[in-house]
Amino acid sequence: MSPLEFEDTLNAFCKDTDAYLKGGPDGPLSGLTFAAKDIFDVAGHVTGGGNPDWKRTHQPATKTAWVVQALVDAGATMVGKTHTDELTRGIAGENVHYGTPINPRAPGRVPGGSSSGSASATAGGLVDFALGSDTGGSVRVPASFCGLYGLRPTHGRIPLDGTMYQAPSYDTIGWFTRDAELLARVGEVLLRGKIGDTLPSRLVIAEDAFEMVEPEIAKALQPAVDAVASLIGNVTKERLSPNGLAEWSAQQQVLQGREAWYIAGDWIEQTNPRFSFEVALRYMFAKGLTDEDEKKALAAKQKVIARVNEVLTPDTVICLPTSGIPAPLTGQRLSVRQAIGQNLMKLTCIAGTMGAPQINLPLVELDGLPIGLSLIGPRGSDEMLIAAARRVAPG
Amino acid sequence: MSPLEFEDTLNAFCKDTDAYLKGGPDGPLSGLTFAAKDIFDVAGHVTGGGNPDWKRTHQPATKTAWVVQALVDAGATMVGKTHTDELTRGIAGENVHYGTPINPRAPGRVPGGSSSGSASATAGGLVDFALGSDTGGSVRVPASFCGLYGLRPTHGRIPLDGTMYQAPSYDTIGWFTRDAELLARVGEVLLRGKIGDTLPSRLVIAEDAFEMVEPEIAKALQPAVDAVASLIGNVTKERLSPNGLAEWSAQQQVLQGREAWYIAGDWIEQTNPRFSFEVALRYMFAKGLTDEDEKKALAAKQKVIARVNEVLTPDTVICLPTSGIPAPLTGQRLSVRQAIGQNLMKLTCIAGTMGAPQINLPLVELDGLPIGLSLIGPRGSDEMLIAAARRVAPG
Repeated sequence: MSPLEFEDTLNAFCKDTDAYLKGGPDGPLSGLTFAAKDIFDVAGHVTGGGNPDWKRTHQPATKTAWVVQALVDAGATMVGKTHTDELTRGIAGENVHYGTPINPRAPGRVPGGSSSGSASATAGGLVDFALGSDTGGSVRVPASFCGLYGLRPTHGRIPLDGTMYQAPSYDTIGWFTRDAELLARVGEVLLRGKIGDTLPSRLVIAEDAFEMVEPEIAKALQPAVDAVASLIGNVTKERLSPNGLAEWSAQQQVLQGREAWYIAGDWIEQTNPRFSFEVALRYMFAKGLTDEDEKKALAAKQKVIARVNEVLTPDTVICLPTSGIPAPLTGQRLSVRQAIGQNLMKLTCIAGTMGAPQINLPLVELDGLPIGLSLIGPRGSDEMLIAAARRVAPG
Repeated sequence: MSPLEFEDTLNAFCKDTDAYLKGGPDGPLSGLTFAAKDIFDVAGHVTGGGNPDWKRTHQPATKTAWVVQALVDAGATMVGKTHTDELTRGIAGENVHYGTPINPRAPGRVPGGSSSGSASATAGGLVDFALGSDTGGSVRVPASFCGLYGLRPTHGRIPLDGTMYQAPSYDTIGWFTRDAELLARVGEVLLRGKIGDTLPSRLVIAEDAFEMVEPEIAKALQPAVDAVASLIGNVTKERLSPNGLAEWSAQQQVLQGREAWYIAGDWIEQTNPRFSFEVALRYMFAKGLTDEDEKKALAAKQKVIARVNEVLTPDTVICLPTSGIPAPLTGQRLSVRQAIGQNLMKLTCIAGTMGAPQINLPLVELDGLPIGLSLIGPRGSDEMLIAAARRVAPG
């Protein structure tokens, strides 16, 4: 049997599964198609997680993931499962086992990861929307690189049942669309309620985040910042991190890594799996972390939370570059890849540490390459972010 | 075309190459067959080195390795290439990409590595003899585990032309046979001269090496020690390492690792290859070594050399367990595998550090499992070791 009903011209889809779930005719999403990152269970199919040894050593799921079932129950048809970085441990979207999904908006460049195939398939029009997950940036970064709307919801807002964990204190489920209207329609299903029209009443521009990026990128983002500012009004600029965003991302790397080893370490030690060298390094770093490292990182995390809470009062949103760079070229050297990953984490760690929702707005291009602007809201403000996205959307 | 002219019942041979070199009818090895570890070039074929990404990123060899050509010129027929641990960086013989060659003498247990397929094929009778390489123990350990004669020659004695390097200051080319006579016949070709009858005149039993092993293993090895002692006479016991063999192996791990990263690091950083987690950890350790680590290790190495030179006077051989354990079970946890590797290195580091020859004598079994005894001679004493092996061989 053919795993897909259409030609996957983007290497976005897993070829070794024919998972397919037909949506019903009478739901709010009837007639739409979606793809699911291969970390979401579909009953009767093995969830592969982007690693052939994970797939080989696991049994078929007995139950479909809550989020997939919710979409199918709402009428959407799941047409296939998409590639992910190995065990979601990557930000570029280059999977050494299954190849790199094509970034339809930036040929020769990575799609971003770990929700690489979902972003690729959505950007290329193979599906109407797609599910991803975001632990350290895995929805936000590919949304920025592929020119998509993408939401990392409030942590805990969407149930993780039937989803492969990376680091549960940070794991969230998000989705990609090409337009803000559909982002909202899917959001009403997954957030279980109306999106409404409530907008933020205050905008904080994160000065230190904008200082991180090249001047030409800050300049390219400016029209989108202006559009958001004129929508919301009441604009202030603030430097969020007293000692720089590198310190803020360092604590998340420790805590996320520590959890990731807690989740996957036993399997790794037992299986000795094939990983790309880069992914192996990530787990090696995680394995080497100590109780003392964790203790220090937890203290640092509390300081980040206290500081952001000063700024992120109710009805406020923080504006910052999502990725700060357009999609990098594929196949770069490890040192370059690692430096890029470190820089991305400085921007994505804020919402990750807070458990706060963040939305990518695909409003800008630089030399033809998409580059996203983000809004972070307080925990629980997912609907407000989507409403803002809908209002600033072109057309 | 079928890559092999016989059924490979042991998963010893590479299935993705049909490298084959017919020997001539009039040489000293005519009528014999051999296998070559897939680190030796055969003109027109890509040398795979046990890693699919190495194979994928390299071109076919333009020239056949010196050692392979020498054997073919002597009349032996090379029937195929055999599996190796990835880039020779392993001691167990479990390759996550190509599977573990069967140990015909110890079912369910590893063959030893990195010359795993060559040892397996020889022990199982698929070939008359086979070529391996030994950097940190990769001929000696599989010889011990598979019950074979195996020589790690004096460093530099056999040209490395056309051989994949791991760490050239330690890399040597060795071979496996089921009997001492053939070991000598192959030796006359590769060492380019008669083996002769000259025996060592003094035997030193390495007390600290024997103290490392379980009492029942020391007891099992005793008849072999006695046989060697009665052949050579003039027996003394000495403790080689003043502060223990762990310190001796630590310096080699640093220096060998440092060279291994120098050799492969650029390729790894460029390619981001698939490795088993265990192999990735080895390279990660190597990548992290500093100039200061190297300096300290070089100083420690000089002390080892000075101390062993006190003992290993001309015509002397040192007797020690080769592996100290029979072949471990396959598929053990990473922590167990690493502990086994560390212990093996304590025994193999002596000849490795000295660049001295070491021969495994397969004279003993424990509960049906082979376990080898070794002789180390001074640099250049390869022929003397083979002569001794021939004299103590059964029958």
